[in-house]
Amino acid sequence: MPVCITGIERVEASVVDQFQGAEVATIHEAQGRKGLMASYMRPIYRPAQIAGPAITCQVAPGDNWMLHVAVEQCQPGDVLVVTPTSPCEDGYFGDLLATSLKARGVRGLIIDAGVRDIATLTEMGFPVWSKAVFAQGTVKETLGNVNVPVVCAGALVNAGDLIVADDDGVVVVAREEAAGVHEKAQQRLANEASKRERLASGELGLDIYNMRERLAAEGFRYVSADEA
Amino acid sequence: MPVCITGIERVEASVVDQFQGAEVATIHEAQGRKGLMASYMRPIYRPAQIAGPAITCQVAPGDNWMLHVAVEQCQPGDVLVVTPTSPCEDGYFGDLLATSLKARGVRGLIIDAGVRDIATLTEMGFPVWSKAVFAQGTVKETLGNVNVPVVCAGALVNAGDLIVADDDGVVVVAREEAAGVHEKAQQRLANEASKRERLASGELGLDIYNMRERLAAEGFRYVSADEA
Amino acid sequence: MPVCITGIERVEASVVDQFQGAEVATIHEAQGRKGLMASYMRPIYRPAQIAGPAITCQVAPGDNWMLHVAVEQCQPGDVLVVTPTSPCEDGYFGDLLATSLKARGVRGLIIDAGVRDIATLTEMGFPVWSKAVFAQGTVKETLGNVNVPVVCAGALVNAGDLIVADDDGVVVVAREEAAGVHEKAQQRLANEASKRERLASGELGLDIYNMRERLAAEGFRYVSADEA
Amino acid sequence: MPVCITGIERVEASVVDQFQGAEVATIHEAQGRKGLMASYMRPIYRPAQIAGPAITCQVAPGDNWMLHVAVEQCQPGDVLVVTPTSPCEDGYFGDLLATSLKARGVRGLIIDAGVRDIATLTEMGFPVWSKAVFAQGTVKETLGNVNVPVVCAGALVNAGDLIVADDDGVVVVAREEAAGVHEKAQQRLANEASKRERLASGELGLDIYNMRERLAAEGFRYVSADEA
Amino acid sequence: MPVCITGIERVEASVVDQFQGAEVATIHEAQGRKGLMASYMRPIYRPAQIAGPAITCQVAPGDNWMLHVAVEQCQPGDVLVVTPTSPCEDGYFGDLLATSLKARGVRGLIIDAGVRDIATLTEMGFPVWSKAVFAQGTVKETLGNVNVPVVCAGALVNAGDLIVADDDGVVVVAREEAAGVHEKAQQRLANEASKRERLASGELGLDIYNMRERLAAEGFRYVSADEA
Amino acid sequence: MPVCITGIERVEASVVDQFQGAEVATIHEAQGRKGLMASYMRPIYRPAQIAGPAITCQVAPGDNWMLHVAVEQCQPGDVLVVTPTSPCEDGYFGDLLATSLKARGVRGLIIDAGVRDIATLTEMGFPVWSKAVFAQGTVKETLGNVNVPVVCAGALVNAGDLIVADDDGVVVVAREEAAGVHEKAQQRLANEASKRERLASGELGLDIYNMRERLAAEGFRYVSADEA
Repeated sequence: MPVCITGIERVEASVVDQFQGAEVATIHEAQGRKGLMASYMRPIYRPAQIAGPAITCQVAPGDNWMLHVAVEQCQPGDVLVVTPTSPCEDGYFGDLLATSLKARGVRGLIIDAGVRDIATLTEMGFPVWSKAVFAQGTVKETLGNVNVPVVCAGALVNAGDLIVADDDGVVVVAREEAAGVHEKAQQRLANEASKRERLASGELGLDIYNMRERLAAEGFRYVSADEA
Repeated sequence: MPVCITGIERVEASVVDQFQGAEVATIHEAQGRKGLMASYMRPIYRPAQIAGPAITCQVAPGDNWMLHVAVEQCQPGDVLVVTPTSPCEDGYFGDLLATSLKARGVRGLIIDAGVRDIATLTEMGFPVWSKAVFAQGTVKETLGNVNVPVVCAGALVNAGDLIVADDDGVVVVAREEAAGVHEKAQQRLANEASKRERLASGELGLDIYNMRERLAAEGFRYVSADEA
Repeated sequence: MPVCITGIERVEASVVDQFQGAEVATIHEAQGRKGLMASYMRPIYRPAQIAGPAITCQVAPGDNWMLHVAVEQCQPGDVLVVTPTSPCEDGYFGDLLATSLKARGVRGLIIDAGVRDIATLTEMGFPVWSKAVFAQGTVKETLGNVNVPVVCAGALVNAGDLIVADDDGVVVVAREEAAGVHEKAQQRLANEASKRERLASGELGLDIYNMRERLAAEGFRYVSADEA
Repeated sequence: MPVCITGIERVEASVVDQFQGAEVATIHEAQGRKGLMASYMRPIYRPAQIAGPAITCQVAPGDNWMLHVAVEQCQPGDVLVVTPTSPCEDGYFGDLLATSLKARGVRGLIIDAGVRDIATLTEMGFPVWSKAVFAQGTVKETLGNVNVPVVCAGALVNAGDLIVADDDGVVVVAREEAAGVHEKAQQRLANEASKRERLASGELGLDIYNMRERLAAEGFRYVSADEA
Repeated sequence: MPVCITGIERVEASVVDQFQGAEVATIHEAQGRKGLMASYMRPIYRPAQIAGPAITCQVAPGDNWMLHVAVEQCQPGDVLVVTPTSPCEDGYFGDLLATSLKARGVRGLIIDAGVRDIATLTEMGFPVWSKAVFAQGTVKETLGNVNVPVVCAGALVNAGDLIVADDDGVVVVAREEAAGVHEKAQQRLANEASKRERLASGELGLDIYNMRERLAAEGFRYVSADEA
Repeated sequence: MPVCITGIERVEASVVDQFQGAEVATIHEAQGRKGLMASYMRPIYRPAQIAGPAITCQVAPGDNWMLHVAVEQCQPGDVLVVTPTSPCEDGYFGDLLATSLKARGVRGLIIDAGVRDIATLTEMGFPVWSKAVFAQGTVKETLGNVNVPVVCAGALVNAGDLIVADDDGVVVVAREEAAGVHEKAQQRLANEASKRERLASGELGLDIYNMRERLAAEGFRYVSADEA
């Protein structure tokens, strides 16, 4: 049953380009607040930001054999997404695999498990978002799957989907929705820019968003400390 | 029932000034080891240190509407303290609200929940102590309270109390006790300075604190490895 | 019953020297994957790396009295290993104790509990690996033990054992095994160096490790996305 | 500074009586959703329900000396509330202290730490809500405080406040608010009884609460699976 | 965008019947070890076992409005699966909703959040698998989705999929795979029955599974304690 | 390197007999508060109590191959102690292995990982103390060790050591210390019996333990609520 799906369809390169530098929070909002990985997924160094199509890799607990199969499926610009079949903090990935991925032009690693050699990975400038940092190594005894749909840190990832990661965390954008999400993100950013300017000048959110009336309608009261 | 208390009494500005640069551990000791928030409250960047009167904001889980009400209550030098009514890691706060708070001269944010846009907040130099970093946004549907007493990360905070935060965490000093606590902290620092010097010169704590006798009295024994 | 064992036998200085700069992951592998502390043991700043013989210190929860006894047992190059008898996050250790340890030439602290004054410790360049950062102080009321065997973050540590710590975590090497472990680590590094070069040039782990045959033998299949 | 406050004012006995058998969820709602302890506070056996005035006890980590002081302050019908000054899972309380409390007519224990001898406590029918079950004992070396205000599992408790605990957890009702809260709880229960009957007969919450219109107004859509 | 999908296709009733009494561990194995929810999903009472088609319900944190929409979609024999869009332990569900679901013949609730009124739910015999027990209530302000695909406790659930839950946890079986999984489970059970008999008679797994040869081939050694 | 040590020396049967029915808390105290496993080790059903010599089994994450080797080493009255080399919650153990152990007269299982089939294990009356309940199965691909020293849930266990487990948790008694510990436990129980009687009659711990003087000496004050 273990399998590697080859020749997967990736989110289009021209679309991916538009997401370089994008912020996870913005993308998450722009796509209707879905696809966000759990808050325990943290970057090994900051700042860091990447965007690229997912190669997915499902591994057994404490076993990184499948990572080597996944590496071969990676193309320049890809992001490798690794998830164990049961919760595990082992260090599946270190500087050797990072060297291999870097040689293939891979942009970074997302792993719902542990990573090691983070001092070297930091020097190499190879970004990783992981659940843990742990020197505990893995074996190569049990098969897994490459490019099947996986649930990584609570988010569903299909091979070829767009991954965006930054200091806030990791979000998945479905392949066929990426172009639309980018457009909505742009609108959002434009909208935010004007608001940022108004807020910076001292205007209040209460006024910009017309909240005062709605507060009153819901029975919200202002009471002086003297009377409280 | 939801309410915003206005015109709260703040810890005096001249007292607050004395706490700029103060260390949380020192303040905590000086006030008899109370008022410390839980260890999960961590700064988004380091080093960071702030001190200022608390504006308190109680929010519903996943709902940041009340933050906008709280912003208006903030004066230059204040520290905003936010706590949800049930445990929540959502990103209640990002760069737009930080822009607004910064425009008002607010010194930083303490939030028993999540924060997002931390790359931008770091660039802006707006310090935040939070329970989580999480891109998950919030809605603006449910009312809360501003400047009521809150329990934030296990510590009771009344509006106007003094908040001191640094790389070690966050401590609350009751408004009326702040001046006294500062005095005790100064004594403590003076005492520590002389001890630091002696320790740096190689003298032992065992001697400085006269511990040898008490150890013997309690039956503590030194045994050579050969005889053990 | 509380005791301080004196005159312990330390891993030989010439052997310790060989571990300066060594990586925890490498050492852990070289000694057959044992002696690794739990992944929650994190350095207060990065990068950091130390190696040295362990002085062990078993403390009561919330009580750092024994640390002062332990300090006297420390010699230049030692690493202090502290573990409470029940789980505790209190800040047992701050800048005063660090000043004392630094004056004695101690290389760093490993503590399965909390630490405080981390801004100052970072400035001083005194590295600490801990379970928590917490300003909560401790008392000096209850005895403990120095240089008895302890379990620290899940790893057994005997006084005089070699401690190696870096950005990935902390590993313990039994005193009498240290020389042998170093030798195996060197072989491992040599082996890794050649592999790193091949991987950097684009060769695949699948080929370097001759995995293709074994994958096929275990029934692993490659399936095109069109047929999947 | 350590102190035991004597002669505290308790919530009135006749009011306490009304809360026997009350449900935590109902009381929490009736008092505007405040005073609830964290969800990690779990009963050692089920079912269990108690209500009574709080005797508060603040203890050092790993030190149960103050419990003995607190016992003397307890009167028949009281509930003992214990909280350590820093997070601790030690077993502060076992069958001996339970025997003592039972002899005094105390209704149960609420402890933001560990408990032990739970097999015996279960046989004795002495209910405990705790953060952990842990055989690790404590010492009697460090002073604490009795009947001062404490924060227990995130909730502020003043001595004499009403504690209500059941299988769902623990809630605190301020002494002077207890009578009013009971009245609101009764209204709530009456209201719920009629709703329970309608729901049991198959009527829908959508209709009972008139939600259909509001759903439509907010743009909620029903889409057949065929068209989705 | 919020939506309720109606008229979903359920796993066939005759297939569901075959899963009554089935064990989660067996089903999980029989379908190739996928679809298992996280280990934190625990039943509120034991023993408990259910099987039925999923009605999915995605809710905002701290907001149970959508549960009322979901109830109407439930048919006799269904299992309601609820997941918040961000991590939340609030008590979304209590005895009123249970009364409503029971009136509709719903078999139980799976919720990646909190539940309350568990004493009453236990008396009613309405089984719930949840992440937490928490009396904290919810509001009805924010829309969600019913019968869209959700990730619940790390497992992907489509409306109409088969849910099996017992004392070990919760597993999801894809609608179209349920019949095949049942068949494989039966083979597994038959196989296990014969093994159970042999093991009960004292035969060893080492012999039943022919492990001795493979152990030797991998270099596993038996060493007497005298020589070790 | 993987090995099974045979012919280990067990704590004497006559000594083990004395620990049947013993309480973990009492034993832990009697041996100077060491050897206690972490509080997350919980029994799958209550009440439960066992005592017996340890067979230790070190397993790879997600791999239960070595359990079958360990079973053969078990004799009537033994307790199997299993610990993974890295943190893992997988269900290593279910009703088949329990059937095999029961056939050999094994008293129970202690596992720093997950267990499954707990409904059946409960029916069988085979007690297990575990870190998790999880239906996720394991493979049989990677070797481990049997009867080597292990750290299980933070406690060092040598093969042949005495394990005592009850509703409070699990404690390890070193083989050669077991007889002495039993004697001290008996003294402790005798001492507790007389105290229990006095406490049950209403005498206070403050008087039984002569605490009043020491409290006064340390400056502890009683203050009436009126003056506070």
